[in-house]
Amino acid sequence: MSIEINKDFLSALADCIREQNSKSAHEMLVDLHPADIAEFFPQLELEEQSYLISLLDNEVSAAVMLELEEDDRKKLLRLLSPKEIAEDLITEMDTDDAVDVISELSEAKKDEVIAQLEDKEHAQDIVDLLRYDEDTAGGLMRKEFVKVNKNWNVITAVREMRRQAEDLEEVYSIYVVNDDNELLGTLSLKKLLTTSSSTKLEELYNKNVHYVKAGANDEDVAKIIQKYDLMEIPVVDELMRLQGIITVDDIIDVMREEAEEDYQLAAGITRNVDADDSIWTLTKARLPWLLIGMFGGLCAASIINGFTVVLEKYKVLLLFVPLIQSTAGNVGIQSSAIIVQGLANGTIKGEVWKLLWKEFLLGLLNGLGIAIIVLFFSHFWFGTPYLVSATICVALVTVIIIAATIGTFIPLFLSKRGLDPAVSTGPFITTSNDIFGVFIYFMIAKMLLGF
Amino acid sequence: MSIEINKDFLSALADCIREQNSKSAHEMLVDLHPADIAEFFPQLELEEQSYLISLLDNEVSAAVMLELEEDDRKKLLRLLSPKEIAEDLITEMDTDDAVDVISELSEAKKDEVIAQLEDKEHAQDIVDLLRYDEDTAGGLMRKEFVKVNKNWNVITAVREMRRQAEDLEEVYSIYVVNDDNELLGTLSLKKLLTTSSSTKLEELYNKNVHYVKAGANDEDVAKIIQKYDLMEIPVVDELMRLQGIITVDDIIDVMREEAEEDYQLAAGITRNVDADDSIWTLTKARLPWLLIGMFGGLCAASIINGFTVVLEKYKVLLLFVPLIQSTAGNVGIQSSAIIVQGLANGTIKGEVWKLLWKEFLLGLLNGLGIAIIVLFFSHFWFGTPYLVSATICVALVTVIIIAATIGTFIPLFLSKRGLDPAVSTGPFITTSNDIFGVFIYFMIAKMLLGF
Repeated sequence: MSIEINKDFLSALADCIREQNSKSAHEMLVDLHPADIAEFFPQLELEEQSYLISLLDNEVSAAVMLELEEDDRKKLLRLLSPKEIAEDLITEMDTDDAVDVISELSEAKKDEVIAQLEDKEHAQDIVDLLRYDEDTAGGLMRKEFVKVNKNWNVITAVREMRRQAEDLEEVYSIYVVNDDNELLGTLSLKKLLTTSSSTKLEELYNKNVHYVKAGANDEDVAKIIQKYDLMEIPVVDELMRLQGIITVDDIIDVMREEAEEDYQLAAGITRNVDADDSIWTLTKARLPWLLIGMFGGLCAASIINGFTVVLEKYKVLLLFVPLIQSTAGNVGIQSSAIIVQGLANGTIKGEVWKLLWKEFLLGLLNGLGIAIIVLFFSHFWFGTPYLVSATICVALVTVIIIAATIGTFIPLFLSKRGLDPAVSTGPFITTSNDIFGVFIYFMIAKMLLGF
Repeated sequence: MSIEINKDFLSALADCIREQNSKSAHEMLVDLHPADIAEFFPQLELEEQSYLISLLDNEVSAAVMLELEEDDRKKLLRLLSPKEIAEDLITEMDTDDAVDVISELSEAKKDEVIAQLEDKEHAQDIVDLLRYDEDTAGGLMRKEFVKVNKNWNVITAVREMRRQAEDLEEVYSIYVVNDDNELLGTLSLKKLLTTSSSTKLEELYNKNVHYVKAGANDEDVAKIIQKYDLMEIPVVDELMRLQGIITVDDIIDVMREEAEEDYQLAAGITRNVDADDSIWTLTKARLPWLLIGMFGGLCAASIINGFTVVLEKYKVLLLFVPLIQSTAGNVGIQSSAIIVQGLANGTIKGEVWKLLWKEFLLGLLNGLGIAIIVLFFSHFWFGTPYLVSATICVALVTVIIIAATIGTFIPLFLSKRGLDPAVSTGPFITTSNDIFGVFIYFMIAKMLLGF
């Protein structure tokens, strides 16, 4: 942990690779954690990476591969033969990780890799897991866990556990099943360590076990793990038969992806991208919302065009279009963000009309505050006539209230319809508020100024 | 797990409470998980909640209290005497949770509660933990863990472990220290179960242990836990002496809060609020950005006002102000969101000028695409003269490029300065782009149309 990964380290490593000095290269890496190796890997040339992967112990290579970003891993996998992938990497991986890597291969290569696996039980488990959708409990679970029969006594259980745990890095929970493999409960290691050896497991295990069905959505699994503070959760099929377990580290990844997705949606980015993706990928993720925003802007232009009389008589009204528009946008984003987040973390419990009424009051309060300040500026700074100032302020309050209620209503509506409310934030709200805002502004002007 | 919490259940429960039928009320709750009880608790009256807390077993009451939202818990705590809080609740809590609850009490009540604690060791641990800042490793850690001396053999370790684990719900890791309490490594329960009893721990333990200092920032601890897929991490003081452990469930809460905070900042909400907070709290969180947005709008009005000649000669230019403004806003938010997220998940590695150059190209590409469509509409729909159409398009491309580079630069700049880049998203970018966008638009108009 005391080795610093800097430019000197990387250039020394590159030298070793160029000179094919495998001994020195190995020595440089041996004390590093795979996650640390994976961190600087993308800074090396692809050939250098592949040289190091072949150099490292299989267990370490496999762990490094898993820690890489998907794009980087895919490039590296293309350089490896099915035999190398199977024997050096997949064999060393837990079934859930193995499935993730195999899913990234082409169909043909996938089959070749599976055929090359020597441990037939491991291969069978992998094939089983490949059936499940990536974003379900089945797609997240692993087959590595310890399972005991309720009819065993402590001494048999410990012996069986030792046998089963041989290939496991660590054991946190022991699952108790009956003869039909139906999940009955869990047994804590602590209890096993502290009970006399002839006691039957039946008398020891905890029947209150949380579990999920294999078809459950991964985000729902994440909610259960969070709610009950679990380290892992067993996965069962329709007949309650134990199929696998999901550990909290995989759930952390689900949570992070979900948070990133919501954040990106709020910012008007339609697919998961990173700063280091290609310009083309980034454009595909960003252009859709820019185009929708553009049409919103063109609609606003049409609306203003429809009120050309204003341009003649009260051109000062046009000065305040940006103010109306940006205020409507900001209010709308705030309202929708609070609802989206409330739906996600379960703090929204009341009825819809109550939430809307609250947003109405909130909009009125904020709107009046802002309108008073704007009144001051429009009068003293821009010298706007009283009636025009009044128009601007009434429009501002109205726009804020409407933007706040739209921002509240749309995510609630989407959620009721079973759609992801997060898509309604960001540019969606901004664009619709651009159009509404400008329209309301000029309608109120028309009514109050009577042109 | 099969009991459904619905209106019928709640009204039946309320009936039991009204009739002071403690037996039936207890029966209704006995099979529920504390997290499930906490979920419907806020729907009951405060007196009903307090009645149930006194009715439930202390262990369950304590767990329910911990699962409540902070606001709800505070209200309930006010109804309880220091003696009740100490004996019924704090005694049943792990030290880290106990500290969280005690921190929510008034200074006077805090001392009374601590004085009432009968288990002096527990009280001492709590007082120790109260010294640490809430958002540091010390503020997250608990004192409940199992610690063994490297000089012990397996049989002594198992005996000691049983003694220490008596009050622990579950044991995942065993920490190995020397005579000075310095952290040396970890011992897996699995190894303890599978090694002969006379072996010295010195020969068994794993020296590669990840740890954090007590003063470490909680978000940094979360990063380490995620990077190395840990279930828990030990906390040491400056002299490497083992002080406590942090478990992954507490880190999940840190991650969720962090994600919520970033999301809210992007939506222009300045403090952590929920949909069910009071209108006053929500206003305090929302008004600051609305006011800043308002000043941005007034600045934009001033800028337009400075170009009044345009209003006379090319009033059609004003139609496209909303388009320019919303496009600049959308581009800016997209760019900054990608950088903020990249900084958070570590995908930003290149140099600043490379990122800016990429955004420049991206802005150019997206800008040209959008400009061509706008050109079409402005010509055929609005009948804008060629030169004015050209002005709009050149302005659009320029504004998009500048918005993209500003959106990229500001979060990078804030991050270099050690500030949270997330504050630069949302309204900050929108407001600055409102002003820049309008200014650039009219400047280009002035140059091209020569007024």
